[in-house]
Amino acid sequence: MGRWEPNAPGRLQQAAFELYTERGYDQTTVAEIAASAGLTERTFFRHFADKREVLFEGGDRFRATLVDAVDAVPPSATTLEAVTAGLKAAGSVFPTPQLVRRRQALILANPELQERELIKLASLAASLGEALRRRGMPDTAAELAAETGVAVLRIALTRWIEDPVERPWEVHVSEVMDELRRITAERSGVAHGLKRSMGSGRARAEASAVLG
Amino acid sequence: MGRWEPNAPGRLQQAAFELYTERGYDQTTVAEIAASAGLTERTFFRHFADKREVLFEGGDRFRATLVDAVDAVPPSATTLEAVTAGLKAAGSVFPTPQLVRRRQALILANPELQERELIKLASLAASLGEALRRRGMPDTAAELAAETGVAVLRIALTRWIEDPVERPWEVHVSEVMDELRRITAERSGVAHGLKRSMGSGRARAEASAVLG
Repeated sequence: MGRWEPNAPGRLQQAAFELYTERGYDQTTVAEIAASAGLTERTFFRHFADKREVLFEGGDRFRATLVDAVDAVPPSATTLEAVTAGLKAAGSVFPTPQLVRRRQALILANPELQERELIKLASLAASLGEALRRRGMPDTAAELAAETGVAVLRIALTRWIEDPVERPWEVHVSEVMDELRRITAERSGVAHGLKRSMGSGRARAEASAVLG
Repeated sequence: MGRWEPNAPGRLQQAAFELYTERGYDQTTVAEIAASAGLTERTFFRHFADKREVLFEGGDRFRATLVDAVDAVPPSATTLEAVTAGLKAAGSVFPTPQLVRRRQALILANPELQERELIKLASLAASLGEALRRRGMPDTAAELAAETGVAVLRIALTRWIEDPVERPWEVHVSEVMDELRRITAERSGVAHGLKRSMGSGRARAEASAVLG
């Protein structure tokens, strides 16, 4: 075993962030990250499986916090309330929106990193689905609610890191959940929040003809 | 250019399916697929970028059919109606449920293929989101509806290929969409389709305390 290095994962992550941003992800080696953090390659690989994983630090903690929060929601709460509570609680794991924004920009710039991100999100959806099944939801409903919850997470995250007035994470989760409720509650002829207009009777009839 | 081979993509795909199923995806080479289809490696690479792509044949047609159908839905229809019409129409691109089931089993057995599948689905969600923006939806709502639509697609697909009585694709899309509407319309105290019970008043109060 190597000697203990104080906060090695944090130092490696910060060094990686800086090198990935300056030189690009592809042009950065593990040796360079370790050197820049004043650590060895061996120490790097004790904490991260590869060059990609360093950007997904905290993912396990995010998942655990989300799942624990969903498990803690009383059974009388609705599915969406449970998912909302989980997403809000998991936000405590995020660093500042500025750091998350840098991370997302790095991921967006590299297909390999995007793939890893998608795999992580799929795995997160599976864990959330299990938590919802523990609440007594049937398989299909649990899977659907979990996938939808992850869609809400992604969109709330984008809004949170791009919010010029930096409203809290919880506010963005609530807003996107409200948007989801609005979209799914829409009825023909009152699409996009517009009131029924005089012409909508014919339009609805046309829609019915097409949509069966 | 090589000579024209009748239905080369179909023959290569069938050969690949059989070899992937018999020997496993990792153990199969492009040379073996081509030989088994009575074609050359060069012909393989004229139709598919790599060993993975052969399993995603038809993906572009699926996307185009989905987007065209969404574009054709009258403006008076709701977002969910438009997405539903798109998903139902795109089902015409699927081969038999048996073939799709074999394909999904192959993908599920291999992390590389899962990654490619997730990338394809993310790209499909982006195209669907663009189609919804063309209908006048704001960015966030369009992205959320598109991601949710892809979640519905995935779950409807699983149900369709596992349905012992082989009900049509359209039925499964409708059922999963109805489930989505049900989940998002739930109110506290009537979770999981249960009627309010005598104890639900206190349970709701507890839920409110936790959920804020």
